[in-house]
Amino acid sequence: MTAVTAAPKGIYLDNNATTRVDPRVVEAMLPFFTEQFGNPSSIHSFGADVGKAVRWAREQVKALLGAEHDSEIVFTSGGTESDNAAILSALKTQVGRDEIITSAVEHPAILALCEYLAKHEGYTLHVIPVDSLGRLDMDAYAKALSEKTAVVSFMWANNETGTIFPIARLAAMAKKVGALFHTDAVQAVGKIPLDLAHTDVDFLSLSGHKLHGPKGIGALYVRRGTRFRPMIRGGHQERDRRAGTENTTGIVGLGKACELALAHMEEENTRVRALRDKLEKAIIGQVSHCFVTGDWENRLPNTCNIAFEYIEGEAILLFLNRMGIAASSGSACTSGSLEPSHVMRAMNVPFTAAHGATRFSLSRETTEAEIDATIAAVPGIIEKLRGLSPFWNKDTAKAESFQPAYS
Amino acid sequence: MTAVTAAPKGIYLDNNATTRVDPRVVEAMLPFFTEQFGNPSSIHSFGADVGKAVRWAREQVKALLGAEHDSEIVFTSGGTESDNAAILSALKTQVGRDEIITSAVEHPAILALCEYLAKHEGYTLHVIPVDSLGRLDMDAYAKALSEKTAVVSFMWANNETGTIFPIARLAAMAKKVGALFHTDAVQAVGKIPLDLAHTDVDFLSLSGHKLHGPKGIGALYVRRGTRFRPMIRGGHQERDRRAGTENTTGIVGLGKACELALAHMEEENTRVRALRDKLEKAIIGQVSHCFVTGDWENRLPNTCNIAFEYIEGEAILLFLNRMGIAASSGSACTSGSLEPSHVMRAMNVPFTAAHGATRFSLSRETTEAEIDATIAAVPGIIEKLRGLSPFWNKDTAKAESFQPAYS
Repeated sequence: MTAVTAAPKGIYLDNNATTRVDPRVVEAMLPFFTEQFGNPSSIHSFGADVGKAVRWAREQVKALLGAEHDSEIVFTSGGTESDNAAILSALKTQVGRDEIITSAVEHPAILALCEYLAKHEGYTLHVIPVDSLGRLDMDAYAKALSEKTAVVSFMWANNETGTIFPIARLAAMAKKVGALFHTDAVQAVGKIPLDLAHTDVDFLSLSGHKLHGPKGIGALYVRRGTRFRPMIRGGHQERDRRAGTENTTGIVGLGKACELALAHMEEENTRVRALRDKLEKAIIGQVSHCFVTGDWENRLPNTCNIAFEYIEGEAILLFLNRMGIAASSGSACTSGSLEPSHVMRAMNVPFTAAHGATRFSLSRETTEAEIDATIAAVPGIIEKLRGLSPFWNKDTAKAESFQPAYS
Repeated sequence: MTAVTAAPKGIYLDNNATTRVDPRVVEAMLPFFTEQFGNPSSIHSFGADVGKAVRWAREQVKALLGAEHDSEIVFTSGGTESDNAAILSALKTQVGRDEIITSAVEHPAILALCEYLAKHEGYTLHVIPVDSLGRLDMDAYAKALSEKTAVVSFMWANNETGTIFPIARLAAMAKKVGALFHTDAVQAVGKIPLDLAHTDVDFLSLSGHKLHGPKGIGALYVRRGTRFRPMIRGGHQERDRRAGTENTTGIVGLGKACELALAHMEEENTRVRALRDKLEKAIIGQVSHCFVTGDWENRLPNTCNIAFEYIEGEAILLFLNRMGIAASSGSACTSGSLEPSHVMRAMNVPFTAAHGATRFSLSRETTEAEIDATIAAVPGIIEKLRGLSPFWNKDTAKAESFQPAYS
């Protein structure tokens, strides 16, 4: 099975955009394409065996989330669908409440939807700001909460900076006013331990391809007892919560990916974290006028976002790419745009630094040799680009670097 | 790669529920799990190559549909999502029109959604009846059409009986009153030649897993110039028509499946049709009190639905299953229910016959030996079950069989 296990070329440090599917996940999926290919809703044997596999996958997802019941897991086509389904359901079931609270640094799957709902469907939207470290303004959140709040949606961890929000506390605050609480946990699931059963979270979104599972599959956690209205209607699949023939190969793959993520969790939080820290310290130590963005004391272990002042992030990425290193200027969804990301803008990162924000996101497949090669490559690239930059000269080089600080 | 090409056990005659993924489709997908796994929205090489594969898949889908532009193809998670997205978009863009027209024999992905919209969102729903052969009541349709019609949705071919609706004519009628026209072509795509460019169809839904492609992927055709509002919001994927990281493996698999379906189209319409006709004639010839449901002169070449009077379809399926033959009582989505399907009820198939409706759906993988084995098995099963049936006795056996006729 060489086609399955062949290693990709180059150094891949863009795991927050998407991950390589673990070969063990592919192996688990393969039989469901050509052997156990039945429709799980069918009553004959071709379908029945598949139904068992789907049930097992639900258990695997439940275990990673620390959820209480496997019936709380609804399989979807991915994080974006899960996000949309949760928000739309909450608004339909929360009769008499028409306000939405979210943050300024959410993924477009939440922000674009909420802005549309505010503009076209008459809902009131509160966008809670963050500070220069990407931490949520808790006072503004507390002030926005009221008996008019239908739903609150905060991401568990930010895709660009890795900053972790205090979800358990945020959910508890929402519950006090009777609001439903959703978290886009696409970046957090599989990277940090979760214990959903002991929170007040009503909905959680996750995506397979962010945790070495396949693309096109995700899940929405819906707490038992939370009322739900489906976004996609039709057959009775997923207990009437998501119509459409089950993506059985994807479901089996997601289940296996969750099982593996749980097994590798400690590694993620020790070895991967150590590699990330090594990369970060080396770059910060060797390159002047750059700093780590986000809440560096409270971050995903795999994520490192460094703002290089006075240069263009896209140029850094192209130079890195030539050396076989894949990184990102932020969300893959916004690449191609010349504007700094909405996350950098929300943190008030100065324009000259926000443009040079570069995200390195590691995974359990990242090796020390890859990190060493990246450390060897980055300073030279930055120096070269600054030599070409109209914003960089000897005076700026002497000036103090911008650096957000804990308050 | 034995895991990929292993043949499943048993005789699979439930291809309208789902199909075995063609091993060539799996081979095409494999590199995109573990090698070319990048996010196509990323600017580095890991993403760029994947973008090319997605563009090629769009061409492959376009070719099978006979569409004019590849930009008319929007990848979705499957037929149900495509159906929902088309109807909801049409209703949002057709300002001032609030009526929906559909048929009584549509898939639940259309019927359940439309019934919900009528009940909860204030739309007026016209459900056009069919005759005893499953043919659309054209007069009722003409009468229902008006300048209030926002959208018309008729399936191209029925999943239970294979009956084909005259889509080109139906779409032209809708266009005359300014209504948008959607067709759920999930069962037709890949089985009969389509020439979308020369119709007035605005939206068409298709599903990968019905044509030997993977589950969890489908497409929505949106004619150039037809206004569109996305159902799932977030990133800018699919030209702002469907947010969410592209399911690249699924897309590549769907593309390959479409290419293969086009290449096998003639076989589908000759060899598969001949096998279906052989099966049908043999059963009708050997078993008393049974008849073919649907429009037998105008059907998908792979589908055969026989109503066996005075017995329970589920019992037939269980007996067939014991002999290793997989068939269906109709839609997989409704299996488990004790009621005859809504399709049989819409055709006014008598209760004693509708209960025994059994669908045999073939594919290009079906062999003559499998059909011969099925022919050998069915009469004995029917005789055995009728021996156990309280509704079957010597008197009923002498009575005339019900048989719908062309009018």
